[in-house]
Amino acid sequence: MTAFRFDLIATDGQARAGLLHTSHGDVPTPVFMPVGTQGTVKAISPRDLKDLGARIILSNTYHLYLRPGDERIARLGGLHRFMAWDGPILTDSGGFQVFSLAPMRRVDADGVTFRSHIDGSEHRFTPEKVIAIQENLGADIITCLDECAPPTDYEYNLQALERTHAWARRCREAHRRADQALFGIVQGGVFPDLREQSARFITGLGFDGYAIGGLSVGEPKEQTYAVLELLDNLLPADRPRYLMGVGTPQDLVEGVARGVDMFDCVLPTRMARNGGVLTRHGRINLRNACYADDPSPLLPDCTCYTCTHFSRAYLRHLILANEILGAHLLTLHNLHLMLIIAREIRDSILAGRFAAYREAFWSARGHE
Amino acid sequence: MTAFRFDLIATDGQARAGLLHTSHGDVPTPVFMPVGTQGTVKAISPRDLKDLGARIILSNTYHLYLRPGDERIARLGGLHRFMAWDGPILTDSGGFQVFSLAPMRRVDADGVTFRSHIDGSEHRFTPEKVIAIQENLGADIITCLDECAPPTDYEYNLQALERTHAWARRCREAHRRADQALFGIVQGGVFPDLREQSARFITGLGFDGYAIGGLSVGEPKEQTYAVLELLDNLLPADRPRYLMGVGTPQDLVEGVARGVDMFDCVLPTRMARNGGVLTRHGRINLRNACYADDPSPLLPDCTCYTCTHFSRAYLRHLILANEILGAHLLTLHNLHLMLIIAREIRDSILAGRFAAYREAFWSARGHE
Repeated sequence: MTAFRFDLIATDGQARAGLLHTSHGDVPTPVFMPVGTQGTVKAISPRDLKDLGARIILSNTYHLYLRPGDERIARLGGLHRFMAWDGPILTDSGGFQVFSLAPMRRVDADGVTFRSHIDGSEHRFTPEKVIAIQENLGADIITCLDECAPPTDYEYNLQALERTHAWARRCREAHRRADQALFGIVQGGVFPDLREQSARFITGLGFDGYAIGGLSVGEPKEQTYAVLELLDNLLPADRPRYLMGVGTPQDLVEGVARGVDMFDCVLPTRMARNGGVLTRHGRINLRNACYADDPSPLLPDCTCYTCTHFSRAYLRHLILANEILGAHLLTLHNLHLMLIIAREIRDSILAGRFAAYREAFWSARGHE
Repeated sequence: MTAFRFDLIATDGQARAGLLHTSHGDVPTPVFMPVGTQGTVKAISPRDLKDLGARIILSNTYHLYLRPGDERIARLGGLHRFMAWDGPILTDSGGFQVFSLAPMRRVDADGVTFRSHIDGSEHRFTPEKVIAIQENLGADIITCLDECAPPTDYEYNLQALERTHAWARRCREAHRRADQALFGIVQGGVFPDLREQSARFITGLGFDGYAIGGLSVGEPKEQTYAVLELLDNLLPADRPRYLMGVGTPQDLVEGVARGVDMFDCVLPTRMARNGGVLTRHGRINLRNACYADDPSPLLPDCTCYTCTHFSRAYLRHLILANEILGAHLLTLHNLHLMLIIAREIRDSILAGRFAAYREAFWSARGHE
């Protein structure tokens, strides 16, 4: 349906290694997508992203629509040019943000009316509107408007699903640009019957790829995993699967083990700005006094710029002094580790030793 | 008196081109020193500084003494290693900060007692103490404790000068590390008789270089210039002259025209974090609505990373959205321009055409 293509290259158990072909280049999967909410991955530049080996980033339709405005971005040549990132971009539909950030929202069968969290102004998203916004932004992969319900509320999920499905059909019909792939979104909370119903409906419409929404928003991990296992059997093998908003090192390993190809999450970048460091063994909080005189790098053997040049003591000083460089250097490290782990996972699948990788990963951490 | 050396290479009128030799490398002068108050030039990394062509940076004794502490920095291998900057560093003595930032200060003949602006704790600086702190930090160029008086208050300056001179003598005696050059500081406000007295006294003690303190803190430009012209005749030609805390593009041109070799100023970096951009023609404030759709770079023909990749519209968006990348990219640009102008000035002196450079500089801007 577009120039977009997904090649499934290898499988190892349920784990999959693939290659996404987009209008702005190829993306090996499994992949972690750094989040660039407002047209920038916070605290780092596009050249930093390239140096880190990031292959695709995510941007948020809701935020860019409100500020600086999708029409302005279109006038300035589209989002790639605006933010000087010439690699692939995926935009979400704004659904999640409207249902989590915007005050005073009213949802109806046709769409959702909400107020801006910036200035309180009133706005309305319909399926056609979010496709038009995403056309203005010009991402390589765009997504359908969906309604995110609390994952354990059955009645709410049942009603939200009806809207999400009707909106998916309308997004499918509104979709025009051949250089943009369109992903459908499967919802249904933690309920197997709703997830199955959603997967059958959305795959029946036919999309370039399938996003899994509404997970890891507070429900127990076992329920998340059960949904992923169910969907692994229901989603077509020849299309990429994208687990929305989920992406710690553990999530990558366990998501891939259940057939997921794509991940995004603000956690590695948000943690960084607060002094939180990802390691292979868990997390450390640099604000703790025990690091005040620690001359060691964040992570021994880490090859990132931060770990090869700076001590924990220095980075802690930057965080305590509210220095921008602290946010920058910790962001570099956390993203480096996420991208490295995604590459390691891919390599292990290609080598047919993903199960061993997964076991080693968990025995290094201890099960959390 | 130390391994430090200054070669005066060329003069053109009063303008001077030289070369500082320090324990961490050579520095062509005239030079602009980016300010790294808390052990980081705000919003950029040491590799950014190297890429920009910065040859020496300044750090603040007062700030580093309070946080993370000079003894901690010494334990971690000194300031160069702590902040991963292997080029030359100059530290001020903390005098200016104590007299401008710290509350509850009490000055006496022996030193100054003050409270920390961070946590209110009480501290005391004496000449011997600030030398010891600067030995712990390990900068290549260190400075004497001085008292900064309001520039137009004669009585205050007269009394402060007595202390500043006594403290200079004691700093000279306390100075030990052969790998650290020690600069004396000339004070005396806007008063020719006090400045002359101070220059004679401080040069009589004999230092590796001479700093000029207490200028550009609110007095009219003509008075600043008159002091510089006076000092140009009083300071030895074979030692570097450093105009403390002064460094806009105009200041560089006019300071060099009056015999100054070294400059530092927080203005280019501080402005950047607020959306202020240095250009060859003055300044622009990116918050202004007129830049919302402006696809042009900050400065046509500028070769910095920011100007070669991003539009004013995008940079304005970053600043309005409080994105860290905005502060980073504007800092890169403002420092690039300061460093370029310093290099252009040096080249013009070496070519014997500084007067023409100065005239072209002003006719491009219009006199402000």
